[in-house]
Amino acid sequence: MAKTLIKNGLVVNATGTGAADVLIDGETIAAVLAPGSMLLGFDIEGNVDRVIDAAGKYVIPGGVDAHTHMEMPFGGTFASDTFETGTRAAAWGGTTSIVDFVVQYPDQNILDQYHAWHEKAAGNCAIDYGFHQILSDVQDSSLTAMDELIEEGVTSFKLFMAYKGVFLSDDGQILRAFQKGSSNGALMMMHAENGAMIDVLVKQALEAGNTTPFFHGTSRPWQAEEEATHRAIMIADLTGAPLYVVHVSAKQAVDQIAAARDRGLNVFGETCPQYLYLSLEDQLGAWSQQWGDFEGAKWVCSTPLRSKHEGHQDHMWQSLRTNDIQMVSTDHCPFCMKDQKDMGIGDFSKIPNGIGSVENRMDLMYQGVVSGRISLSRWVEITSTTPARMFGMYGRKGVIQPGADGDIVVYDPNGHTSIGLGKAHHMNMDYSAWEGFEIDGHVDTVLSRGRVIVDETGYVGTKGDGAYIKRGLSQYLT
Amino acid sequence: MAKTLIKNGLVVNATGTGAADVLIDGETIAAVLAPGSMLLGFDIEGNVDRVIDAAGKYVIPGGVDAHTHMEMPFGGTFASDTFETGTRAAAWGGTTSIVDFVVQYPDQNILDQYHAWHEKAAGNCAIDYGFHQILSDVQDSSLTAMDELIEEGVTSFKLFMAYKGVFLSDDGQILRAFQKGSSNGALMMMHAENGAMIDVLVKQALEAGNTTPFFHGTSRPWQAEEEATHRAIMIADLTGAPLYVVHVSAKQAVDQIAAARDRGLNVFGETCPQYLYLSLEDQLGAWSQQWGDFEGAKWVCSTPLRSKHEGHQDHMWQSLRTNDIQMVSTDHCPFCMKDQKDMGIGDFSKIPNGIGSVENRMDLMYQGVVSGRISLSRWVEITSTTPARMFGMYGRKGVIQPGADGDIVVYDPNGHTSIGLGKAHHMNMDYSAWEGFEIDGHVDTVLSRGRVIVDETGYVGTKGDGAYIKRGLSQYLT
Amino acid sequence: MAKTLIKNGLVVNATGTGAADVLIDGETIAAVLAPGSMLLGFDIEGNVDRVIDAAGKYVIPGGVDAHTHMEMPFGGTFASDTFETGTRAAAWGGTTSIVDFVVQYPDQNILDQYHAWHEKAAGNCAIDYGFHQILSDVQDSSLTAMDELIEEGVTSFKLFMAYKGVFLSDDGQILRAFQKGSSNGALMMMHAENGAMIDVLVKQALEAGNTTPFFHGTSRPWQAEEEATHRAIMIADLTGAPLYVVHVSAKQAVDQIAAARDRGLNVFGETCPQYLYLSLEDQLGAWSQQWGDFEGAKWVCSTPLRSKHEGHQDHMWQSLRTNDIQMVSTDHCPFCMKDQKDMGIGDFSKIPNGIGSVENRMDLMYQGVVSGRISLSRWVEITSTTPARMFGMYGRKGVIQPGADGDIVVYDPNGHTSIGLGKAHHMNMDYSAWEGFEIDGHVDTVLSRGRVIVDETGYVGTKGDGAYIKRGLSQYLT
Amino acid sequence: MAKTLIKNGLVVNATGTGAADVLIDGETIAAVLAPGSMLLGFDIEGNVDRVIDAAGKYVIPGGVDAHTHMEMPFGGTFASDTFETGTRAAAWGGTTSIVDFVVQYPDQNILDQYHAWHEKAAGNCAIDYGFHQILSDVQDSSLTAMDELIEEGVTSFKLFMAYKGVFLSDDGQILRAFQKGSSNGALMMMHAENGAMIDVLVKQALEAGNTTPFFHGTSRPWQAEEEATHRAIMIADLTGAPLYVVHVSAKQAVDQIAAARDRGLNVFGETCPQYLYLSLEDQLGAWSQQWGDFEGAKWVCSTPLRSKHEGHQDHMWQSLRTNDIQMVSTDHCPFCMKDQKDMGIGDFSKIPNGIGSVENRMDLMYQGVVSGRISLSRWVEITSTTPARMFGMYGRKGVIQPGADGDIVVYDPNGHTSIGLGKAHHMNMDYSAWEGFEIDGHVDTVLSRGRVIVDETGYVGTKGDGAYIKRGLSQYLT
Repeated sequence: MAKTLIKNGLVVNATGTGAADVLIDGETIAAVLAPGSMLLGFDIEGNVDRVIDAAGKYVIPGGVDAHTHMEMPFGGTFASDTFETGTRAAAWGGTTSIVDFVVQYPDQNILDQYHAWHEKAAGNCAIDYGFHQILSDVQDSSLTAMDELIEEGVTSFKLFMAYKGVFLSDDGQILRAFQKGSSNGALMMMHAENGAMIDVLVKQALEAGNTTPFFHGTSRPWQAEEEATHRAIMIADLTGAPLYVVHVSAKQAVDQIAAARDRGLNVFGETCPQYLYLSLEDQLGAWSQQWGDFEGAKWVCSTPLRSKHEGHQDHMWQSLRTNDIQMVSTDHCPFCMKDQKDMGIGDFSKIPNGIGSVENRMDLMYQGVVSGRISLSRWVEITSTTPARMFGMYGRKGVIQPGADGDIVVYDPNGHTSIGLGKAHHMNMDYSAWEGFEIDGHVDTVLSRGRVIVDETGYVGTKGDGAYIKRGLSQYLT
Repeated sequence: MAKTLIKNGLVVNATGTGAADVLIDGETIAAVLAPGSMLLGFDIEGNVDRVIDAAGKYVIPGGVDAHTHMEMPFGGTFASDTFETGTRAAAWGGTTSIVDFVVQYPDQNILDQYHAWHEKAAGNCAIDYGFHQILSDVQDSSLTAMDELIEEGVTSFKLFMAYKGVFLSDDGQILRAFQKGSSNGALMMMHAENGAMIDVLVKQALEAGNTTPFFHGTSRPWQAEEEATHRAIMIADLTGAPLYVVHVSAKQAVDQIAAARDRGLNVFGETCPQYLYLSLEDQLGAWSQQWGDFEGAKWVCSTPLRSKHEGHQDHMWQSLRTNDIQMVSTDHCPFCMKDQKDMGIGDFSKIPNGIGSVENRMDLMYQGVVSGRISLSRWVEITSTTPARMFGMYGRKGVIQPGADGDIVVYDPNGHTSIGLGKAHHMNMDYSAWEGFEIDGHVDTVLSRGRVIVDETGYVGTKGDGAYIKRGLSQYLT
Repeated sequence: MAKTLIKNGLVVNATGTGAADVLIDGETIAAVLAPGSMLLGFDIEGNVDRVIDAAGKYVIPGGVDAHTHMEMPFGGTFASDTFETGTRAAAWGGTTSIVDFVVQYPDQNILDQYHAWHEKAAGNCAIDYGFHQILSDVQDSSLTAMDELIEEGVTSFKLFMAYKGVFLSDDGQILRAFQKGSSNGALMMMHAENGAMIDVLVKQALEAGNTTPFFHGTSRPWQAEEEATHRAIMIADLTGAPLYVVHVSAKQAVDQIAAARDRGLNVFGETCPQYLYLSLEDQLGAWSQQWGDFEGAKWVCSTPLRSKHEGHQDHMWQSLRTNDIQMVSTDHCPFCMKDQKDMGIGDFSKIPNGIGSVENRMDLMYQGVVSGRISLSRWVEITSTTPARMFGMYGRKGVIQPGADGDIVVYDPNGHTSIGLGKAHHMNMDYSAWEGFEIDGHVDTVLSRGRVIVDETGYVGTKGDGAYIKRGLSQYLT
Repeated sequence: MAKTLIKNGLVVNATGTGAADVLIDGETIAAVLAPGSMLLGFDIEGNVDRVIDAAGKYVIPGGVDAHTHMEMPFGGTFASDTFETGTRAAAWGGTTSIVDFVVQYPDQNILDQYHAWHEKAAGNCAIDYGFHQILSDVQDSSLTAMDELIEEGVTSFKLFMAYKGVFLSDDGQILRAFQKGSSNGALMMMHAENGAMIDVLVKQALEAGNTTPFFHGTSRPWQAEEEATHRAIMIADLTGAPLYVVHVSAKQAVDQIAAARDRGLNVFGETCPQYLYLSLEDQLGAWSQQWGDFEGAKWVCSTPLRSKHEGHQDHMWQSLRTNDIQMVSTDHCPFCMKDQKDMGIGDFSKIPNGIGSVENRMDLMYQGVVSGRISLSRWVEITSTTPARMFGMYGRKGVIQPGADGDIVVYDPNGHTSIGLGKAHHMNMDYSAWEGFEIDGHVDTVLSRGRVIVDETGYVGTKGDGAYIKRGLSQYLT
């Protein structure tokens, strides 16, 4: 097995930094060493196969994106990134692990679905991958299967409070799933939006002729998110289950999560880059451009972009700082404008919901370090360490320490990254949600389990490098 | 310089654990290695001076106790531990760094005091030590000297809202000090109790003939602490200074801190073992025992022990879990019952305030792991990592990583520690505040900057081993 | 028309008291006069038909019970009080107006139901009565009919978040009804319990063999009430509709209402005597008595009695004091133990839900004055003035002033009332939920629109005295 | 004694309205009657001395301004209105009672001061007047005298947390005064601003050359008010004393009061018209006008005007609606620009603090009815009924009912009032703080204890009409 030394870099972990060399032997980290190639007189550099000089650069644990939807079936189409294209793009962007969602629609068997998703991913991934399991109708057999899935390394289960007939679980179903989670230690994930309210507002908007993408946002008001977040918290309170709220975008939902934590509950929140950087006003402003009114469809996702005037974005950054929001995932769910998003011309409710960012997350969040929003350590914590701990991968992922997988990114604070079509863009999308964003840093080198998969020439890995991550229970519960 | 290998242990850091060997070369950690004595064919174990087998044990960064008062002058006497006896006791208990307080009384010059404290400590300490500076009357020259002290490694400044004529700063003085802290990055520490209210209540209690130690607690009600905590927070809010509230004991004060953090402020809280384990009822219950009514004097400290019926202790444990309280120090300020505490027979207000725990903190908090109150990582975080980050020592202290000081404790979860006179008790006190506490763990080995100072035979260090820690600015601000 | 003078009493209104005589001419109050029978030399007493001497007694506006269910069909039976028996019992207890609920089950036409309820009540009532309209399935035609009903004097509409298939409206239906309320000024009333959660818990309890009445309470936990209350508030927030939450029993639900009001919303809460005086522990304690385990069925109501250990009752009294809860109704919905409640032997879910208190409310709340929980004015405010204002009857009801209906109660603070079977009990029930309660006061005389219907001999009115109250929009909105 | 009938008006009380005639016989109200001049065949109108036709107008209880400072000594000068001029202006504006403050400076005897204030007022007032007592240094004798003053009808005592050396009480003094209030039922009033903080900020502003009136506001930030408000609340919490916070201007202070009330405390807040209508931006904007930079001095008062951008004014209106703020006084403390305010040219700290509004309060608050901010009943409640209840005058003042003093205002909603010099302005000031305000209503007729003192010709009363109001304990406590 190959031996690699990353020397002279500044190792960044979640609690701080330290100048250190990192020695990788085969797939795992063998040692973290004081800088300099000699240890007790032994010449380490002379005994390895490859030396990467990280002088002036950050050496960080590879990014962990805990919320992706590769080739997800939705609304008659599929998310445009396959496990192959999506994980390769992730690698370009310094993410070395994803956790994707096994979809279960009503009446489907969740174990069948779990196996089907293994088939989709196996042999196709550029980086390691794990699975969350979606529960829609919460069958008795699904509850039983939860225990089995935990043995398989699927230790987190997602429910939806929206999308009636597709994903929606009613509160009784959610209660039963949470009771199970409380007893077997699974982490319960929640898409927290009040679907019944939203369905009425969408119908009313369309009936009123408000059909453009902008109205996607206005028909999913913050009250619908705050309400559902609070409801999920109360079910967690009643059952004792730990709760993880996905893609939080409304400041009022953040406040509900913070209040729950102040009461001692194991309630956590994830946000996404779009809720930190983009706004409903951006979406509206784009209207009159090349795609006409419909260009806003690029940013149609759920939860929706929120109004900047209401201060959601600033509040979200603050919450990231103070750990009221614990981590950042992408909710990567890309759809092309052509033949996909454009199904919603004249009816925003038919626009496939989703934004693709799996390639951009590490860069976008690093820009938060540059702008002084978060510290360097916090960057690593919210993009790698906490995701790994939250979802039971820490020790192997999320940290640079002996025994951990050799998932490492050398990040250059003096480099630069321009995001957009024809630039940093390797996702299978015909547009970038982040067109024009400039990043004052650059992913130089990416190692996945000891193998260099991105270097100065670009992606150098091989399809199928990525292996399934059998996860344990959450390591973040208090 | 000696080379030591600690092998086969489970290294615990603030975010998780990993089986690893730790190599110390001279005073600092040279490498953290995958277990097994060979690295790339090189026999590490064969090339070191000393091997410590930590199989089945935890290897943790040495404890950092950020709140001690060695030989502090107070009320006509001195805290009974000198820097020599106190730091030696700390070493026994797995603490390898303290931050002590340079006292300044009104009209004294803080730089003079700073130098005087160096003289007290230099050459006497068993472990490394740093200083906070107390500001009482906030002279113009004190504000100027703050910048100088920061250069000297004193980056935190403590003020008092109680003890009129001794330590008390009025709100205008506090405001000016905080303005300075806001501009030079110093961390402002606060003893948050409303002294004016307390002085009246004490006087009224004594006039009513309520003279026993129990009335110390009742004359310092939670309202006095909550009020002062809130007041300090508002001054921090106005000035932008970061605030660290010492020895928080009231749940309502915790709630003020949590609320401030939810608003995005850099406001932090420290608690102490006594506020987690002991209560006003304990203090009262002790009355009818060997020391008669006066035995309660053993636990006279300020802030006081709080009522268990009001739930302060449970709330404090919860807050430790959820990081509404960030860390645990001792407020080590020991006085003997004979000739010291007994000055207050017949008048509780004359009892020197303080409890000695510097030797017991790591054990007492570990018992919180045993009882399921906190996780193993959280134990390390609140006793070592966060104290080091909070007070600008991280990198050297608070973490096991290459380049860090060789401050390491091997802790045995299968060992046992009985606390009390004639047992685990090396503080210069004629009683133990923790008499009878049994700990399901044991400090086996303690290294301070690479030297073993505690082993199976007990303390094996030398007076003067400890060196001054020149601290940087806080690394915990968000 | 008869002329009556009530002289020498202490008139109590919502803001205070004043010694005054009250002159009623026909159905309405003609004057409120300084005590003494002469006005500008004119002998009033000599020119009236009847003089009631209220010396030493309180003269208050007749009670307004805004939440009753006379002869309501539910679970295959009917509430045991008809409009005749129920309103007569109300009169005995000093209540001169009720607002009852027109029931609509799914697929029924609300106007048909409205007319049906008029038929039930017309010619049968001892006192005046109004109607709220229940909306279950929120048909398009129901929304249209709301405007019509407002013209008819039905200005408040109740929805349910529980009782699936019977009353439950989903959140989309609620949203649409609230939108209508926001535009036409109707007050939206809510039974706020999460039925989906409760249905699961009830099923689980029964499957576990927990079939006695006590488990009715435990399967309707406070989280289900708090959650639904918050959800209703958010729908009110989104739509701008005013919201009135019925029968609040959980302190956490109170806190949600208080928080909404602190944010400026028109959100109100009603509680009932059972949530102030009775507890889950009372219900449990009754088990081993005459009715065996099943005696607890007497107090099966929804929302359920709450645990005293959790402090709900004390919090509710406090909230009444501070106006976080605005008023007290009975939710009078009586069922006999024999042939009604006993349908639930062996299955608590089959026990008809409800308690009868329409006769006892004024007395029970007056006892709160005696015990110092509330002031005399507050008693009148929460039992008469605010109910009248809340539901658009003020001016005619809820106040003693010229032009108001002659609905007056002479209440004797030196009298005494023993509640229970064979004592003060005229409701058509074979038990009293308030058996054994002793009241330090007594309803002496009751006038309804100028007619004395209760005097020292007891009820002296005539069936059909009561008339329909055509209500206006709420007069309590801010 | 004269008999007056006010006929055909709409009587407005705190809970609602009713068409009624009001008969006043001598000094008090004899009857409130259904409209029409006949009672049981007796011709009332034919038996009175004077008939006032209030058709189309509101008949309200006379305004009660519970916060005035007539001829107050302050900063080497005196408030420019004497009891004579100030109460006459009040009468012009529909206010028929004031409660003024007896000043006590340190070392003065409060009983001496109390008597001195009687001398100032006796024989000079146009309307009735009561007194609050200021406590500055809280002497032992002051505490004793509190009981005596309560017997004299002075049942409320004001302390200051600002103005060191002039009014300031320290927290120990406040605690002792509150303990007394808790035992004897007095209502404790508080000027809640942190003077120690403000003194530093003022000094720093002046040293920085920021000497214009605008900096008065910026040196009294909301944090200083919020902090002191919270501190006073905690002292109230500890002692059990009821607390009334005067001239609340910061929304954060409102939130502290609301939170205290949600916890069940008897804590109340008063605001003033200037905090509802005027802002720091208004004060700044006036700079470049006729009075040059110094024109802002017109609105120098403490607490200061707050920034509109921060939303204080909107929040205050909302709080008035929801009863988080209970009432509106003026804090009438007028100073002329010439020879008074102008002492602060070049040094804002020398500007006498105060605004004159005693004449304008009823009109200004009525405009809140016109603009839809508050209801007609709420107008009466916050300007008359609640002030009367809060300060123990209800029954005589604050309500139209038999036995009450004949203090009545006939207010014409079809009239108009222009405020300003040469217009509605009878205060002894050389400017109006309300210049240019237009009111869509008009004070038509004012009666004080049965005498008409303002009619269509203007003020028609006599110096000395007003009598001392011997107040009882607060009637507003819950």
